[in-house]
Amino acid sequence: MKMIAKIHTDLPTKFGLPRQSGLVEELEGLIVFEPAYRDPEALRGIEGFSHLWLIWEFSEAKRTTWSPTVRPPRLGGNKRMGVFATRSPFRPNPIGLSCVKLLGVEKTPDNGTVLRVGGADLMDGTPIFDIKPYLPLADCKPDATGGFAAEKAGYSLKVDFPAELLAKVPTDKHAALKALLAQDPRPAYQHDPSRIYGFGFAGLEVRFRVEDNTLHVTEIEYQMI
Amino acid sequence: MKMIAKIHTDLPTKFGLPRQSGLVEELEGLIVFEPAYRDPEALRGIEGFSHLWLIWEFSEAKRTTWSPTVRPPRLGGNKRMGVFATRSPFRPNPIGLSCVKLLGVEKTPDNGTVLRVGGADLMDGTPIFDIKPYLPLADCKPDATGGFAAEKAGYSLKVDFPAELLAKVPTDKHAALKALLAQDPRPAYQHDPSRIYGFGFAGLEVRFRVEDNTLHVTEIEYQMI
Repeated sequence: MKMIAKIHTDLPTKFGLPRQSGLVEELEGLIVFEPAYRDPEALRGIEGFSHLWLIWEFSEAKRTTWSPTVRPPRLGGNKRMGVFATRSPFRPNPIGLSCVKLLGVEKTPDNGTVLRVGGADLMDGTPIFDIKPYLPLADCKPDATGGFAAEKAGYSLKVDFPAELLAKVPTDKHAALKALLAQDPRPAYQHDPSRIYGFGFAGLEVRFRVEDNTLHVTEIEYQMI
Repeated sequence: MKMIAKIHTDLPTKFGLPRQSGLVEELEGLIVFEPAYRDPEALRGIEGFSHLWLIWEFSEAKRTTWSPTVRPPRLGGNKRMGVFATRSPFRPNPIGLSCVKLLGVEKTPDNGTVLRVGGADLMDGTPIFDIKPYLPLADCKPDATGGFAAEKAGYSLKVDFPAELLAKVPTDKHAALKALLAQDPRPAYQHDPSRIYGFGFAGLEVRFRVEDNTLHVTEIEYQMI
């Protein structure tokens, strides 16, 4: 399987990643093709599609063995489901599937033609195997039922983001960061209201705690480069 | 990339395959897991989902080189589009993506637990790399635009299937075969009304010709085994 491109996002680690693609549309990513696949002709006609599929590698989740069951964080991390009934990264083949919005096809001086996408749930630097157009006729199933994954669909947190901390975040990143925080970036459903969590975002380290149904941002630090 | 399963369908070759998954829901497939992945625990909870994603190998379309553009049959076979703007089998990585309906999770004496699915656009014997649940929240984009692929969306043929030929087809295969024929199984948009085309289906050889907007079945033969 060849890496055809890499995606660049504001999330340097798996912490803070949205639970599914499309949940945080404000989150932008830039798809940069590898030199061998950097041909604008390969994208001819792609601007006619509003959404794309990314098929990518769970590059941080490679294992030599596989387990038939996994514990989805959505179920509190204490209930096992069959791996093929989940989108868990820990599966026989480390393949991820994400639907993203196509925001732009852009020519750059250094990286050739790149794709700007919204709603990606991928870590910065994730290798991409394939890009396909989203075909509403074949892919959109409005009558589909979502199994256990649908149960927590409406779940979100209130976000308390003190103005002096928000001021440390570039303005064009406010919406994405707030949306990321609202979807509860805690690793599983841990419930210690005094515990401070943190994750990297757009060169910042974001720290917060969660009490009842509110996430309080406690610190914004600039990351060392 | 490991083959975790194979799908069994009524289509022994690429001729006659639906152009996309879901277009011919009557077409049933049986997913049989490889012995190393034949663990019913890996499917725990999957029955809660109405639809699944199959990520599979274009096993008949492997090439050592790639072309940045392809000619989609939907556009008459004479217009080139960027490979990433199509679902063409000829792409840098031979990965297929199909949404299918989950019809049943069944225990068999010989093959362990298998999945029965509807609407598969896969050749008999196609290797499967991964199975993921369809998550309506993340995957269903009712506002998506379908680019050039949407233009021919409503296209179908009338089917003239003489009763004496239809009688040679097992009754439970009638609906699927008629639906397959209606979606025009000609290789590209060839328009010679006298030309006879044929493809294998469920152990039969189906022959037909197309005049104006009607497909006439001309022969049904039993295939040698």
